[in-house]
Amino acid sequence: MQVKEDIISVHENISPYIQNTPIITSATLDKMALAKIFFKCENFQKAGAFKMRGAINAIQNLSEEEQRKGVVTHSSGNFAQALALSAKNIGIKAHIVMPSNSPQVKKDAVKSYGGIITECEPTLQARETTAKKIQVETGATFVHPFNDFNVVLGNATCTKELLEYKPELDIIIVPVGGGGLIAGSALSALSFGNTCKVIGAEPAAADDAFRSIQSGKIEHNTTTNTIADGLKTSLGDITFNIIKHYVSEIITVSEQEIVDAMALIWQRMKIIVEPSGAVALAALLNSKQKFKNKNVGIILSGGNVDLKNLPF
Amino acid sequence: MQVKEDIISVHENISPYIQNTPIITSATLDKMALAKIFFKCENFQKAGAFKMRGAINAIQNLSEEEQRKGVVTHSSGNFAQALALSAKNIGIKAHIVMPSNSPQVKKDAVKSYGGIITECEPTLQARETTAKKIQVETGATFVHPFNDFNVVLGNATCTKELLEYKPELDIIIVPVGGGGLIAGSALSALSFGNTCKVIGAEPAAADDAFRSIQSGKIEHNTTTNTIADGLKTSLGDITFNIIKHYVSEIITVSEQEIVDAMALIWQRMKIIVEPSGAVALAALLNSKQKFKNKNVGIILSGGNVDLKNLPF
Repeated sequence: MQVKEDIISVHENISPYIQNTPIITSATLDKMALAKIFFKCENFQKAGAFKMRGAINAIQNLSEEEQRKGVVTHSSGNFAQALALSAKNIGIKAHIVMPSNSPQVKKDAVKSYGGIITECEPTLQARETTAKKIQVETGATFVHPFNDFNVVLGNATCTKELLEYKPELDIIIVPVGGGGLIAGSALSALSFGNTCKVIGAEPAAADDAFRSIQSGKIEHNTTTNTIADGLKTSLGDITFNIIKHYVSEIITVSEQEIVDAMALIWQRMKIIVEPSGAVALAALLNSKQKFKNKNVGIILSGGNVDLKNLPF
Repeated sequence: MQVKEDIISVHENISPYIQNTPIITSATLDKMALAKIFFKCENFQKAGAFKMRGAINAIQNLSEEEQRKGVVTHSSGNFAQALALSAKNIGIKAHIVMPSNSPQVKKDAVKSYGGIITECEPTLQARETTAKKIQVETGATFVHPFNDFNVVLGNATCTKELLEYKPELDIIIVPVGGGGLIAGSALSALSFGNTCKVIGAEPAAADDAFRSIQSGKIEHNTTTNTIADGLKTSLGDITFNIIKHYVSEIITVSEQEIVDAMALIWQRMKIIVEPSGAVALAALLNSKQKFKNKNVGIILSGGNVDLKNLPF
C-alpha cells in the first residue's frame, strides 16, 4: 500500500523535529467511560500541538530553491506557531499573517519561534489577500494549515505512533476542524490498524464535518460560536475526500460537554489540554454505549491555552 | 548504612500502591534557568501528591490488630486524601478530621476514596480534640501527616526514584511545609546520591524552616498568608532533627514568584501543579547563579488545585 510506505517515510524524515509524545491512561476515566482509553498527548508536542507534524513535513517537501524563499501562512492558532518553529528548525523564513485581534499571547508565541508576523484585518478575505501579497513580494510558498496532502501525511504519524504502542485499538476518536488530523489518522488506521475505526468529534456549534458526511459534499459552518477555537474551520477538498471514504462517523458535542471533559482531564490527569483537545473525550463520554469495553484511542490534540481566559 | 536499607525495603513494600512517577525535562526552562533540570512529577502520583508514599508506609507499619481498628488524622489537604486512599487499598477504615470550612472539592475527594469525614471548627485545637475523641472511641491509630518517621521514610522513596533515574544530580530542591518530604529527600540523597545536596524552598510568607535553620531550634510561622496552602505548617521535631543536619539551605520566595513559576509550568510543560508544587522552581529561578550549569532535581510535589480558584 503506497500510502503506508509514504507515512513510514514521512515519519522517518520528521522524527528529528517532533516528539514521539507519551500515551497515558487513567483508571478513573476508564471507570467513568466503561472503556480502556489510551490518550495520545499531543499537548506535549513541540509548539504545544500536533500541527508541528504536518508543518515540518510540508517544509521538508519543498525544493531547496523554494525553501530559500521561505514559507507563508495565515493562522491565528497552533499552525502559526508550528510553521514558525518548523521553519526555524530548518533555517528558513516563515511569514505569518495574523488577524490584528489575535490574542497577544499567540503573537508572542509566534515571535518567540522567530516567525515574521504581518497583521491584517480580522476577515478571511484580508488574511488571504495579505498572504498573497507576501507570496508575490518574497516568492515564499504558501502552506495551508490542513488542506495539503503533505500536511495530512505529517499529521498521520500521530496515529501511527498510537497504533505502534497499542495495535489492538478498536477505535480512535479525533477532533475535527479543517480535517487535517482526522484525515491523517484515517490513513494511518488503514495502514497500521487492525480493523481500527476512526471517529470524528466536533462541537455541535461548528458541525460542518457532521453535515458534510450526511450530505456527501462540503458543508460550511454557519455559526462558529464554540470555545474550541481550533475547530471553527470548515473542511477542505483534500481532507473531505479522505474523510468521506474512511471516517465512519462524526459525533457532535455541546459546549458544556467540552468544558466538562476539559476539566476532567485537568483535574484527574493533571495535564493541560486546550478546549479543542478535550473534544474527543467529550464525544466518548456523550456516547458511552458505543465504546463500552473497547480499546479506544483519544488524541489530545493540543495544550495551548490562555491562562487568563479559562472556562472554569 | 541502616537508613539506606530501610528506604530500599520501604520502597519495595509500598511499590504496589504508588506510581514511580515520570521525570520530565524542558528545553525552554533549562534555557531560562541556565541549568539542566529534572522534574519529578509527583503531581501524577496517586491521589495527586507525594503524600501517598508516606501514608501507605505508615499504615503498612501498623500491626494487624491496629490496622483492624483503622487510622485517623486531621488534615484539610493532600494527606487527607492520601491516607483515605491508602486505607482503602489496605482494606481498613480512615477517619479524617476536616475543618468545617474546607473547600467542598477537598471533602468530595476524601469521600471518593472512602474516607470517613468528621467536621470540626477550623482551629488547630478543635482538630486535635476531635481526632483524639475518635481515637478513644474507635481505637484508631493517629497518623501524623509529616512528623512520623515511617511517613518520612515513605516520602524518601520519591528522591530515591529521582536519583536512580539521574545519579549525577548535584542538587535537589524540595518544597518545605512540615518538612516530611524534604527530610525524606535528605535521607535519600545521603543514601543514594553522589554528593547530591538538598535545598529547601519555602514561601517567604511562611518561612519557619528558614528561620529554624538560622536559630537552630523550631521556629513557628507567625503569618501563613501564602497561596501555597500545603506549606503553611511549621516543622515537627522529627523532621527538624533531620533537616538541621542534612539540609544545606532554605531559599524563600515571594508570592509573585510562586505564581509565576506555576504559570511557567502550566504553559511550558502543559502539566498541572498546585502552588506548593511550584515553589521549588520559583526558588531555582530566584537564585539562578547558585544552580548555573548544574544538574538540578526539582520535586513537583502535587497537582491538586481548585479550578474555580486559580491565581492567574
